[in-house]
Amino acid sequence: MIKVGIIGATGYAGQELVRLLKGHGNAEVKWFGSRSYIDKKYAQVYQNMFEIVEDTCLDDNMEELAEQVDVIFTATPQGLCASMVNEDILSKVKIIDLSADFRIKDVSVYEEWYGLEHKSPQFLPEAVYGLCEINRDKIRQARLVANPGCYTTCSILTCYPLVKEGIIDANTLIIDAKSGTSGAGRGAKLDNLFCEVNENIKAYAVATHRHTPEIEEQLGYAAGKEITLNFTPHLVPMNRGILVTVYASLTKQVSYEEVKAVYDKYYGKEQFIRVLEKDVNPQTRWVEGSNYTDINFKIDPRTNRIVLMGAIDNLVKGAAGQAVQNMNLLFGEKESRGLELVPMFP
Amino acid sequence: MIKVGIIGATGYAGQELVRLLKGHGNAEVKWFGSRSYIDKKYAQVYQNMFEIVEDTCLDDNMEELAEQVDVIFTATPQGLCASMVNEDILSKVKIIDLSADFRIKDVSVYEEWYGLEHKSPQFLPEAVYGLCEINRDKIRQARLVANPGCYTTCSILTCYPLVKEGIIDANTLIIDAKSGTSGAGRGAKLDNLFCEVNENIKAYAVATHRHTPEIEEQLGYAAGKEITLNFTPHLVPMNRGILVTVYASLTKQVSYEEVKAVYDKYYGKEQFIRVLEKDVNPQTRWVEGSNYTDINFKIDPRTNRIVLMGAIDNLVKGAAGQAVQNMNLLFGEKESRGLELVPMFP
Amino acid sequence: MIKVGIIGATGYAGQELVRLLKGHGNAEVKWFGSRSYIDKKYAQVYQNMFEIVEDTCLDDNMEELAEQVDVIFTATPQGLCASMVNEDILSKVKIIDLSADFRIKDVSVYEEWYGLEHKSPQFLPEAVYGLCEINRDKIRQARLVANPGCYTTCSILTCYPLVKEGIIDANTLIIDAKSGTSGAGRGAKLDNLFCEVNENIKAYAVATHRHTPEIEEQLGYAAGKEITLNFTPHLVPMNRGILVTVYASLTKQVSYEEVKAVYDKYYGKEQFIRVLEKDVNPQTRWVEGSNYTDINFKIDPRTNRIVLMGAIDNLVKGAAGQAVQNMNLLFGEKESRGLELVPMFP
Amino acid sequence: MIKVGIIGATGYAGQELVRLLKGHGNAEVKWFGSRSYIDKKYAQVYQNMFEIVEDTCLDDNMEELAEQVDVIFTATPQGLCASMVNEDILSKVKIIDLSADFRIKDVSVYEEWYGLEHKSPQFLPEAVYGLCEINRDKIRQARLVANPGCYTTCSILTCYPLVKEGIIDANTLIIDAKSGTSGAGRGAKLDNLFCEVNENIKAYAVATHRHTPEIEEQLGYAAGKEITLNFTPHLVPMNRGILVTVYASLTKQVSYEEVKAVYDKYYGKEQFIRVLEKDVNPQTRWVEGSNYTDINFKIDPRTNRIVLMGAIDNLVKGAAGQAVQNMNLLFGEKESRGLELVPMFP
Repeated sequence: MIKVGIIGATGYAGQELVRLLKGHGNAEVKWFGSRSYIDKKYAQVYQNMFEIVEDTCLDDNMEELAEQVDVIFTATPQGLCASMVNEDILSKVKIIDLSADFRIKDVSVYEEWYGLEHKSPQFLPEAVYGLCEINRDKIRQARLVANPGCYTTCSILTCYPLVKEGIIDANTLIIDAKSGTSGAGRGAKLDNLFCEVNENIKAYAVATHRHTPEIEEQLGYAAGKEITLNFTPHLVPMNRGILVTVYASLTKQVSYEEVKAVYDKYYGKEQFIRVLEKDVNPQTRWVEGSNYTDINFKIDPRTNRIVLMGAIDNLVKGAAGQAVQNMNLLFGEKESRGLELVPMFP
Repeated sequence: MIKVGIIGATGYAGQELVRLLKGHGNAEVKWFGSRSYIDKKYAQVYQNMFEIVEDTCLDDNMEELAEQVDVIFTATPQGLCASMVNEDILSKVKIIDLSADFRIKDVSVYEEWYGLEHKSPQFLPEAVYGLCEINRDKIRQARLVANPGCYTTCSILTCYPLVKEGIIDANTLIIDAKSGTSGAGRGAKLDNLFCEVNENIKAYAVATHRHTPEIEEQLGYAAGKEITLNFTPHLVPMNRGILVTVYASLTKQVSYEEVKAVYDKYYGKEQFIRVLEKDVNPQTRWVEGSNYTDINFKIDPRTNRIVLMGAIDNLVKGAAGQAVQNMNLLFGEKESRGLELVPMFP
Repeated sequence: MIKVGIIGATGYAGQELVRLLKGHGNAEVKWFGSRSYIDKKYAQVYQNMFEIVEDTCLDDNMEELAEQVDVIFTATPQGLCASMVNEDILSKVKIIDLSADFRIKDVSVYEEWYGLEHKSPQFLPEAVYGLCEINRDKIRQARLVANPGCYTTCSILTCYPLVKEGIIDANTLIIDAKSGTSGAGRGAKLDNLFCEVNENIKAYAVATHRHTPEIEEQLGYAAGKEITLNFTPHLVPMNRGILVTVYASLTKQVSYEEVKAVYDKYYGKEQFIRVLEKDVNPQTRWVEGSNYTDINFKIDPRTNRIVLMGAIDNLVKGAAGQAVQNMNLLFGEKESRGLELVPMFP
Repeated sequence: MIKVGIIGATGYAGQELVRLLKGHGNAEVKWFGSRSYIDKKYAQVYQNMFEIVEDTCLDDNMEELAEQVDVIFTATPQGLCASMVNEDILSKVKIIDLSADFRIKDVSVYEEWYGLEHKSPQFLPEAVYGLCEINRDKIRQARLVANPGCYTTCSILTCYPLVKEGIIDANTLIIDAKSGTSGAGRGAKLDNLFCEVNENIKAYAVATHRHTPEIEEQLGYAAGKEITLNFTPHLVPMNRGILVTVYASLTKQVSYEEVKAVYDKYYGKEQFIRVLEKDVNPQTRWVEGSNYTDINFKIDPRTNRIVLMGAIDNLVKGAAGQAVQNMNLLFGEKESRGLELVPMFP
């Protein structure tokens, strides 16, 4: 039984981790860390857990945690994981960080986009970017996994094969992303009130969203060069789900079948990536509650562009589900353990 | 492995059955019956099932089905199950009917409220009302289980202990129920369009809803006499969930602790019924996707009434989940098998 | 031109007042009071007002306001209006208080339900309860109008004729109310976040909601005696709208036509009350954005009860619209001025 | 008093026309045409109109209508207006067609994208494209106005000044549009059911949506050459509103101030176009129920692209509001008459 500690267990991502781990079968949450709710029963913070979780929230003490568990998930604001981790801790436990602290290799890029000083840049070289379908082998050997961002996961998985194969010009990439509101977290902010979000759609952080350099770095590896792209997130009046609509110029004339073959080459054997049938567009409802990424594309011969579409559940494949997938890789479990969830509809 | 056939597999309840049975471990759907989608791939009707269900929809042939499976679920409009079932079929398979055909013992009551001639009244005496927590032992012996209605399940479970113990006057019961829109089914009706349901709440079928006699019959058994009550359903702009708010006059002065003790007596050991902590009101979001019924109550000394509240997921405990629970009882499985789902939030 | 000051102009009700007064034609908001946003442009707090309102938010200074305007609307938390008003102010301006401070005549009842000391009980006798359809003549003469609560308006208007005529037993009244989320205000509270409200319904303040004594007092006047009743509010995932479903025992056998005639007697000439056609249930979407109250009823001969239903827009007839209606009465304007709004659908 | 006839009065756009014309003051709907609801009271189709509209639905007889009214609005499916209009009718009444029949000058383009034979191509030359802010003078002289599409209005108004001034390369335009569900009409289709739309976002008609050639034609006039662009619509779980997010390459280095000056040059005096303050992104909720188009932009120096954003209410500026604006121009009314509506929030 893998002993698990969660720092930040009372955010939406932390709570989703608890839900998923309850169904894992070989993992058990031993530490429900939550600075805001210390000594409060977890099931009083999340009433869905009543009679399911009996534990009480604890402080965010990574040193103490390292003595008690096999793996620590940090589902906390940026900067916290980097400020707590050290060599001693890493020698004792695996860490899967759901924040951005170890996602970007270049510390100056991190500090510029996040406006934070990085407290543990010495661990950046060894941290592995935890996008399982692409870095599977490296993850298995890691001590510290940087769990990718929600927008990032969906964007990269959607674009990766075509960038890697040079079918699209990566510098023409425009990613228009739409997210459900759970991505905004559980903080009590006016902007996230029901009446402010409902019956509305808006773009935010235009040309400045922090997931941009993360996408650029990872797709840059695929392209074999540095790239820049446009990324625009939007807030949608729904709880869960991310849809990305991606535009790129084709580098050459390609047919539907050729592009489909490229996707199949990379994802044909991937359990959690579903390249849909021709002309079936990804929709967030079809992946809700599951670890799937649904992908499809449409060639527009009029403009010589291709439109790519990808959909995930931001709390599962975009956060907690991918974190569990990473845990499975780290501990030699079947990669899909605890994640074979049928999307819940409606 | 229990072989399962579903007649009406492409309604919301039928699809939820498929989702739940996929996670059961000892049951397999062998027949996806759907008169509307014969020969169409199931995963094209419900795209969430892509790469999960490879089967194609078949006709609703109960005779043929009876040769091939161990249990048939009928998730069909009223009248269909009664028109298809016969002694030969019942001698070969178990039937769990999610429609109302076998819920009401008095055929004249059925025919009056449903406006239908009952085609198989001869099976009414043996049919067992499949409210697991109350009829568990009878269900185990049944051939034909009448799976309760969604409003009914929530209403009866919420009221049962207090009616049974005579703490409330059953003839003063007023049940004000609120349901998500999946309860209205997947038919393409103007009234169920997004723009008609969203940003709206309404009552419907006031004083005439068909679940009324079903609740009256079952609570009448508990009361030991015939009762009449008011039941008013409302349509709420959400996908899943039923909340009932029940009002009744107390027959005597009781304390919080006394009422709590009654609930605990009946439900203290029930895995799927959670009597909440004092002053924590049931909310549909805390049971979404799960088989739980959450219950609580508030005594109003000013009016000598008690307010009971109950919440379920209408597609799980109110339909498919309870049907699987019944299947488990019929086949000697652990009653909770495939149903130990943590409610999904948000 | 009536000069208007608003104290609490940046809450949802205050903003709705601004919207309605913009279309009034003979009223102009001269003072946008908002303690939270002093010196901020109003249109930056409510972007819908961009290029429509050029003003900046001011402090909540009632003394100063009284010098500058003809009428003050207080759309503030309980207690604030009572703490600011005095004889000097009342001698200079009319006050329409959208809080509860002057709604309840018995100061001890107010203090018990609101948990506040009343700072100006001396004005309670002269304050007029501003339910226009019932107190029209008194309002015309008032200096201080207590604008009714949202739940209260809908509940009282729905029940009033039948209570007044003794057709129902007022002590059997059970009011099950459902409200959109704007009724919860614009405060940044976790409970009102999109992800907490969406896909959910819950009861709250069961048997303890502060609108209860207000309804009891007003319906008590109609009944000619003190009454107690049950009132249960619910939070619905929509922005606007209140629906009440009311249950009461009939005092005698009545026909549909007899009850309809009673409603017509009281409301037949009322512009803003629509008694719907037989079997058409009120729905919140049909009154959204308007000052209408839609009402209907259903007799249930099985239980000898009647089910009444009423729907309003909580921000219009339940707050700002009724406040403008009161202003029109106070200033001798046509009562419907600025309020002849066609409900907006969808 | 302008006498108005509506063909297609029971669609969402038709009903919005009725709402707006009720508040116009110098126009009156004399004919509520609705083939689906002939002889049914209009207020029974749209219960919000109860006691406001007493009329009964009539057939879609344009010949007869032409005798009785001054202007006919056709809010009907594509092809219907073109099949009914003739010289005799045009000599008697003005026609404002809310369908696509007269929007595209090149009949072969229309026939290709709409898959319909055009029944009245002879009127294409004289039809005026009714985008008021751009074609104001021509509209005043027209007999037949082609009211622009909803996506089209928002897209063109957002891009027009920058295309016209050559600041962006029109062939790099990528328009990612998001629409509320009322844009899908009131037809009873499975895809538009509440449970299918709620908690979901999807793209549709990718690279094939019929508004594409309309946008290309109009922006082509501004660019002074034929252009092609990408347009992708998405369905959002909300009733009203369109947001477009537009990406384009800059033709030269420009500052915020330079671009702002261009917008101000074209729109500075436009009552219904609001170019927002720096870094305030358009949101659909801020224009809901009103005739405004809210616009803003963000320069991304990293990619040398500009991101434009525009928001409208699809039923007002995107349909009925613009139609009324066109009517005002046709009849010499003040252009904003009946349209000075404060956006309704929340």
